[in-house]
Amino acid sequence: MMFYHLVAELVLTRVQFLFSFDAAEELKDSISNKNHELVLVRGMNLVDEIWGDARPEPPKEPTRVHDIKYAGIDVPSKLSFIRSHLTENGCDAVVISMLDEVAWLLNMRGSDVPHSPVFYSYLIVEVSTATLFVDSNKVSEDVLEHLEKAGVKLKPYEAIVSEVERLAEKGAKLWLDSSSVNAAIITAFKSSCDKHMKKKGKAGEKVEKEAYSDEPTGVENGALNAVYNVSPVTLAKSVKNEAEIEGMKNSHLRDAAALAEFWCWLEDEVCKSVPLTEVQVAEKLLEFRKKQDGFIETSFDTISGYGANGAVIHYRPTPEDCSSVGSDNLFLLDSGAQYIDGTTDITRTVHFGEPSPRQKECFTRVLQGHIALDQAVFPERTPGFVLDVLARSSLWKIGLDYRHGTGHGVGAALNVHEGPQSISYRYGNLTALQKGMIVSNEPGYYEDNSFGIRIENLLLIKELNLANSFGGISYLGFERLTFVPIQSKLIDVSLLSPSEINWVNDYHEEVWDKVSPLLSGDTRDWLWKNTRPILDVTHRYSHAQDIA
Amino acid sequence: MMFYHLVAELVLTRVQFLFSFDAAEELKDSISNKNHELVLVRGMNLVDEIWGDARPEPPKEPTRVHDIKYAGIDVPSKLSFIRSHLTENGCDAVVISMLDEVAWLLNMRGSDVPHSPVFYSYLIVEVSTATLFVDSNKVSEDVLEHLEKAGVKLKPYEAIVSEVERLAEKGAKLWLDSSSVNAAIITAFKSSCDKHMKKKGKAGEKVEKEAYSDEPTGVENGALNAVYNVSPVTLAKSVKNEAEIEGMKNSHLRDAAALAEFWCWLEDEVCKSVPLTEVQVAEKLLEFRKKQDGFIETSFDTISGYGANGAVIHYRPTPEDCSSVGSDNLFLLDSGAQYIDGTTDITRTVHFGEPSPRQKECFTRVLQGHIALDQAVFPERTPGFVLDVLARSSLWKIGLDYRHGTGHGVGAALNVHEGPQSISYRYGNLTALQKGMIVSNEPGYYEDNSFGIRIENLLLIKELNLANSFGGISYLGFERLTFVPIQSKLIDVSLLSPSEINWVNDYHEEVWDKVSPLLSGDTRDWLWKNTRPILDVTHRYSHAQDIA
Repeated sequence: MMFYHLVAELVLTRVQFLFSFDAAEELKDSISNKNHELVLVRGMNLVDEIWGDARPEPPKEPTRVHDIKYAGIDVPSKLSFIRSHLTENGCDAVVISMLDEVAWLLNMRGSDVPHSPVFYSYLIVEVSTATLFVDSNKVSEDVLEHLEKAGVKLKPYEAIVSEVERLAEKGAKLWLDSSSVNAAIITAFKSSCDKHMKKKGKAGEKVEKEAYSDEPTGVENGALNAVYNVSPVTLAKSVKNEAEIEGMKNSHLRDAAALAEFWCWLEDEVCKSVPLTEVQVAEKLLEFRKKQDGFIETSFDTISGYGANGAVIHYRPTPEDCSSVGSDNLFLLDSGAQYIDGTTDITRTVHFGEPSPRQKECFTRVLQGHIALDQAVFPERTPGFVLDVLARSSLWKIGLDYRHGTGHGVGAALNVHEGPQSISYRYGNLTALQKGMIVSNEPGYYEDNSFGIRIENLLLIKELNLANSFGGISYLGFERLTFVPIQSKLIDVSLLSPSEINWVNDYHEEVWDKVSPLLSGDTRDWLWKNTRPILDVTHRYSHAQDIA
Repeated sequence: MMFYHLVAELVLTRVQFLFSFDAAEELKDSISNKNHELVLVRGMNLVDEIWGDARPEPPKEPTRVHDIKYAGIDVPSKLSFIRSHLTENGCDAVVISMLDEVAWLLNMRGSDVPHSPVFYSYLIVEVSTATLFVDSNKVSEDVLEHLEKAGVKLKPYEAIVSEVERLAEKGAKLWLDSSSVNAAIITAFKSSCDKHMKKKGKAGEKVEKEAYSDEPTGVENGALNAVYNVSPVTLAKSVKNEAEIEGMKNSHLRDAAALAEFWCWLEDEVCKSVPLTEVQVAEKLLEFRKKQDGFIETSFDTISGYGANGAVIHYRPTPEDCSSVGSDNLFLLDSGAQYIDGTTDITRTVHFGEPSPRQKECFTRVLQGHIALDQAVFPERTPGFVLDVLARSSLWKIGLDYRHGTGHGVGAALNVHEGPQSISYRYGNLTALQKGMIVSNEPGYYEDNSFGIRIENLLLIKELNLANSFGGISYLGFERLTFVPIQSKLIDVSLLSPSEINWVNDYHEEVWDKVSPLLSGDTRDWLWKNTRPILDVTHRYSHAQDIA
């Protein structure tokens, strides 16, 4: 009971800035179902009381301008796009609180959050003004000039609540994405609307809720002059423009070069039986990436899992407690980087010794799923979940599966996980896959206490020029962004169809063509060896005999 | 305006027996959105006024007992299954108005409706009694004895409404499937509940609505002592028992023999340039089927479409206006039969002359979709729509598609279309495919004004015994029920993978093994010729060269 009450107070003081409005309402409902109440405690902050002086300062990292050659579209154009959405929806302003949306919209980047080039901020776009709420210490002259040019004013980070209250008093109609805007802001807007309405003696205006969520908003107390809908930035950000695509392609090639150097080095070390832990291996990979132009940081904590550790889907080795990478089992490495021009995310699984037939069969079936998704063609308006089965069906054939989605959206020099699209066995996400979106293709298989397998490339969705277009619509497909060899040793070629064999050979040819110019010496030799076609004469002849 | 008002009156007099409650509510809402009103007109029936004496008598066809050797489970067992559901859901009675559900539950068949072995009736199952509402003239001594043994009483067909009112007065809690039970019954129950509650001075009890539909029930006027849920018969009927499966398998073999005779005959006639219309061809097929043991009638109007007519998905030729079947274009034939022990539904597409490369490519891609679905393995709890993409993806690769679902449920010696499962690109049907269900596998492609292609087999869902069962769950797959050759001439073998070629050859071998014992003479020779393996040495060698 004390615990629940404490939770209640936390949510509605400091923590209400940490919960989206929808999440807070859900918590409120859950608590109330257990006959407890979520209580608003004004004027004190229990978390801060507990922290006392020990509370670390909020990050003060400088922001920077994300160059137009990488961003592709200037801020005034992006703002006017958002404003046209406001007008269409009869709104006066939108509050944007997703940090990657602020960064994308303002062509700015920061480093307040590890792995994600974003900065703590809010943005309010009104029909004729735009205001960025950010600690002004993070804003250099350059950035200030960039913002001024785009007509974006600065206010202190903490001023967001009073600004929202001011909008409420003005009677402005707000566009609020209640799944992302935090409870503090929506609650403040709501109270101010109520007060304002009471003063004016008007009945509260109708709350509109659009198609975004099936759940009721939880707004019970009347007046709230708002349209609830998914943020207008979400979809725009997910559909990459030409410059963003160019940056993603370029950064992926440099990343591929770093990975080639890394795998060449690791193979050599393991063959020489040099003892290396999972953490040391991840650190060495970072070294190779650091040598690449435009490298900023990793795009997530590297998942470096040898043997049974590879079966832990979100495994994160620590120096105190991690395995050595050897040649007796599979090694799964899922890593990525933030570059000035793009974001990468790649998984490869390798064996430095002799893989078992079981491991080869599992790897090959994961690969077949990877290929089937990679090669998919689909009509426009297809949600990602429709394609998920393509990545699983070859595992299903022998009663195997994996317990994670197959693909997530990826930002361009932004968050490595972004929405709204996904490719998952969950049917809830109806967002259509669209030309210009980027998704990961990462089927896997995990055998508890034994080994893990995942093969991940990033894919760009493109419109295809096919011989037909039934229904007069577009047909879409994927273009690979990731060019790192897939270990042939792990492939049981007898399981592959000729077209799957062709895929492997074509992919490796493309890897060689694109990445070898960036390499020299041993690494170039390693890439050559690891991109040779799979020769499979025996298999195909024996198959011909079966049938004839 | 007059028109709308007329519609209103129709709905709430006679037509209310023809609309499910949900459909009537939807109509009511649509009409009210246009500022018209759905008016209840009591004591007159405008449709009957218009008919006058010209109105045909309702069908008076006799009913029959569906032998336990085909039904598999006796009526008392089925009733006690339904009663256990009633008890679990706190209900006193269920009103069953779907004719195939009544027929399945009572192991009875009739012939009031063309193509479907059902009879006009309602059934009310209470915790200790069961009452069939049917014209007693349709009930022979045999059937009466069968019903008496199972403790089922008879009442006149028209007595259903007063019986529902009696239940309302008793305060019985009803299980109502508002998607199938008609508006007349639910409206009568509702009014009686209201009256009853008023008399007793009690507040209306809470209307419960379970997971079946997302739509509100539209029940606004308070008291209705009912649970709205999908009928407890629906799922039970869709999952076939051993005897039903046996009957389906046997009837499919006899049907295959009839089809072999038919195709052998038709090929010969067309080669001899005998002029035959689409209707004459369908009539001849009926003759061949009539010779088979246990044949009752066709299970739907035969779709016999030559050339451009094949592109009309629900084409139905008439003697006055139909084409001749020739050797210049594709001929699509979708037909089925009701047998004493099972129901069939099969589509084949053939060419009696030289198919164009375009026709072969389209046919082959439809076949690839058919094979991919046929070979699918999937975990339990997978809804049908998840598999739909498998049947489409090879068409999508060249920008083609088809505008219908891929599979529907099929009754066992019952309706050729039955729910609740389906395999469709529409994502609304979340019903999991279950062991014992039957579905059609019928991808197609239709080129307007040119030709139509569809390849349809029926499939039984079975549990597979695989090497693994990840997640400790069952993995399911399909067993084919339909054994009729697929025309090899239409296959572009160069598009097929070795495993697809194997599928075709294995299927044809199975067709030969199962159906040839039922045939003799020319038909047996025709079957032999049409089940020979596809030889494909050229293709596979050229492929090997490509890679090596």
